[in-house]
Amino acid sequence: MAQDDSRKQRRRVVVIGAGFAGLSAAKALRNAPFDVIVIDRHNYHLFQPLLYQVATAGLSPADIAAPIRGILRDQKNTTVILARVSHIDLERNEVGAEGLRIDFDHLIVATGAQHAYFGHQDWAAYAPGLKTIDDATYLRRRILLAFEKAETEPVAAERRRLLNFVVVGGGPTGVEMAGAIAELAKRALAMDFRSIDPRCARIILVEAGPRLLPSFDPSLSEAARHSLEQLGVEVHLGAAVIDCDCQGVSLGGERIEARTVIWAAGVMASPAGDWLGAQADRAGRVKVVADLSLPGHPDVFVIGDTALALDEYGKPFPGVAPVAKQQGQYVADLLMARARGNEMPPFRYRDFGAMATIGRKRAVAQIGRLKLSGFLAWVLWSVAHIYFLIGFRNRLAVATNWAWNYLTFQRGTRLITGISGARMQDMTPDGEMPESARVREVA
Amino acid sequence: MAQDDSRKQRRRVVVIGAGFAGLSAAKALRNAPFDVIVIDRHNYHLFQPLLYQVATAGLSPADIAAPIRGILRDQKNTTVILARVSHIDLERNEVGAEGLRIDFDHLIVATGAQHAYFGHQDWAAYAPGLKTIDDATYLRRRILLAFEKAETEPVAAERRRLLNFVVVGGGPTGVEMAGAIAELAKRALAMDFRSIDPRCARIILVEAGPRLLPSFDPSLSEAARHSLEQLGVEVHLGAAVIDCDCQGVSLGGERIEARTVIWAAGVMASPAGDWLGAQADRAGRVKVVADLSLPGHPDVFVIGDTALALDEYGKPFPGVAPVAKQQGQYVADLLMARARGNEMPPFRYRDFGAMATIGRKRAVAQIGRLKLSGFLAWVLWSVAHIYFLIGFRNRLAVATNWAWNYLTFQRGTRLITGISGARMQDMTPDGEMPESARVREVA
Repeated sequence: MAQDDSRKQRRRVVVIGAGFAGLSAAKALRNAPFDVIVIDRHNYHLFQPLLYQVATAGLSPADIAAPIRGILRDQKNTTVILARVSHIDLERNEVGAEGLRIDFDHLIVATGAQHAYFGHQDWAAYAPGLKTIDDATYLRRRILLAFEKAETEPVAAERRRLLNFVVVGGGPTGVEMAGAIAELAKRALAMDFRSIDPRCARIILVEAGPRLLPSFDPSLSEAARHSLEQLGVEVHLGAAVIDCDCQGVSLGGERIEARTVIWAAGVMASPAGDWLGAQADRAGRVKVVADLSLPGHPDVFVIGDTALALDEYGKPFPGVAPVAKQQGQYVADLLMARARGNEMPPFRYRDFGAMATIGRKRAVAQIGRLKLSGFLAWVLWSVAHIYFLIGFRNRLAVATNWAWNYLTFQRGTRLITGISGARMQDMTPDGEMPESARVREVA
Repeated sequence: MAQDDSRKQRRRVVVIGAGFAGLSAAKALRNAPFDVIVIDRHNYHLFQPLLYQVATAGLSPADIAAPIRGILRDQKNTTVILARVSHIDLERNEVGAEGLRIDFDHLIVATGAQHAYFGHQDWAAYAPGLKTIDDATYLRRRILLAFEKAETEPVAAERRRLLNFVVVGGGPTGVEMAGAIAELAKRALAMDFRSIDPRCARIILVEAGPRLLPSFDPSLSEAARHSLEQLGVEVHLGAAVIDCDCQGVSLGGERIEARTVIWAAGVMASPAGDWLGAQADRAGRVKVVADLSLPGHPDVFVIGDTALALDEYGKPFPGVAPVAKQQGQYVADLLMARARGNEMPPFRYRDFGAMATIGRKRAVAQIGRLKLSGFLAWVLWSVAHIYFLIGFRNRLAVATNWAWNYLTFQRGTRLITGISGARMQDMTPDGEMPESARVREVA
């Protein structure tokens, strides 16, 4: 990006990452007296909470993603750059990305998180996680191919292994994945095969802690477990994975044979801590002060899943979309206040509650003191998620798809795509894994 | 597939390929006294005529593809196998596919076509074609990345090269691709960039023959050319490509610099001729007799784009969907007639006409003596294509998407996805090309 002297008339805010946090900051700067540059390695904003529906063939990628340029098209002070950031130079106030050098007056780092294997990075090959669209279509291919391969597999033990699905991690993603795979197997695919019965697939949800959804009230954890079991999911609590290979997982005393293992057990922040040379916690989150800026760098902010920010009780904010959005809004407000010579109080999170869905008509929701489970919670969940999906078109497409899936139990997007299409060798992980599964070794 | 003696009670029809031809045959055998086995290398049936809309971000892959198992679910005499066929043994009446050996009493080969480079197989790397979903998402990535890269490209000549798009071949696919890219550039993307103006993109349609759409009436060829030029497409007629590299194409006396070249100039049949050891024409199509069977093999049929069948005047049937569908139906009828001890007259094609669309509200249509162009033809085209899309859900999704695109000029599926996501290196073709672009050297 050529340096243009005239640009110095307005101060420049560079936002790295157009997830919930970064996009919220960029949008809030719409009328601010800044030039805003948004850099992302993808050309779309992803509505991550519904990614599990892409992985289980309920939605198309385009239903839950919207082009960043389209979202910010009418925001004349904003430029979008598609590039992968490689470094940040805090001496020269410069971001480097694929040969570009982009200088900034204010920097907002919102690069999100990736899955973490707690020091067992080799498990990534056997137990892919779910953070990007490529992860989701890869998982979709793996899950659908397991049924396809089972259909023609002559050896009973291998057929069993192909029809066992293990989901590791009992947080919202794990709960939602397990429920969705159960419905895929027991409903959508039930009548589609001739030599296997997909309804005999075992879906096993493994959680190391004593209950599912630990961030929810225990009564809702129990409701979620009950709902999953009604869907036919086996829930193993207090069961930590101690090993993982291409044929299954080993828990404490138990071995589960499975060709499909899905990792929903942990995330770690993106490498932003390394770029910033900043202090990070074990999950890679960058420690920030009360106004979400980097200690000693009042013009560099870290927000969303990349940040370790503490509330007034010294507790970290949870890694959820509402925190990310509110932090983005906060930093934008702060920059605008400062431009007017004002100060802002520290960031505060307004918690509107949390929800997780379990299959086709059940969910749990916790909103302040209100705790809901079952069908009513599911309706609330659906309405909220459709509402928050960015862009009218996506809302319409998602609502149409859901109405269709709900009425028919079908899954419209059951396509096995990808570079190598339907080749069975795909069952063993190889170089075609999505890049996010090939993250660098955890230090 | 284990050989089971009991199966011999019913004769077995094996159908290779679930495109228009194979699927039509399989569906027509629904109530026939046969066991039917459908083998395809993909788990979905693809509505190929709309593939160009996936490549230009108008539709999602799932909008134009439906799982084969879902389509044939209620057809109890039919089994679907996802596998890539490797050989056919006509001595033992056996099909080999990924370790499976599937014997047959009757065989229907309907494996379609792939793009052909007329002996210049090396051009495949520079000028990808459009036959599969992976081709389409690859082209979508290439096209969208060209604009993205142009936005940050400092060198004017390279920026120009990035904004030049060449479509080779003036048949329906080339005409439709060129029109769709023009609308993408001049409408959907028009306001999304800051340093480039996508409306300045040049879209160049190159046809070696004297007119576009040679299978249509010359008046419609002219109407198509006029419509394309109104959309801003440059049409070069009588211009054969003599060379092709990563920076553009060379025509007779002219060189066009372009980083995106799309091949829509020719197809050749799948390798079925090799499998069958049969006589094939230069395009790889297998010569069949009047009842579409292989000479000397009355129980082996070749249909659709894989077949070279001649009408009563000795002219080959065109490689279009209606021919494929009618041939599938014909062979099914023939097998059922034979099972009752009856004979059938030779295959006859009932030509209901042809259509091609040019952008958002223009098309040409030729139905018997009726010739239509402009908006009315476009309405007819839209209705026909939505009607013929398999499955209610897809029809609904496509209609919704089109209504949305029509009303807003937006493209909802503008996602750059794929193993390597947004990396700019993707601009130079590498090992991540879809497999269909890596076809074996043409003999």
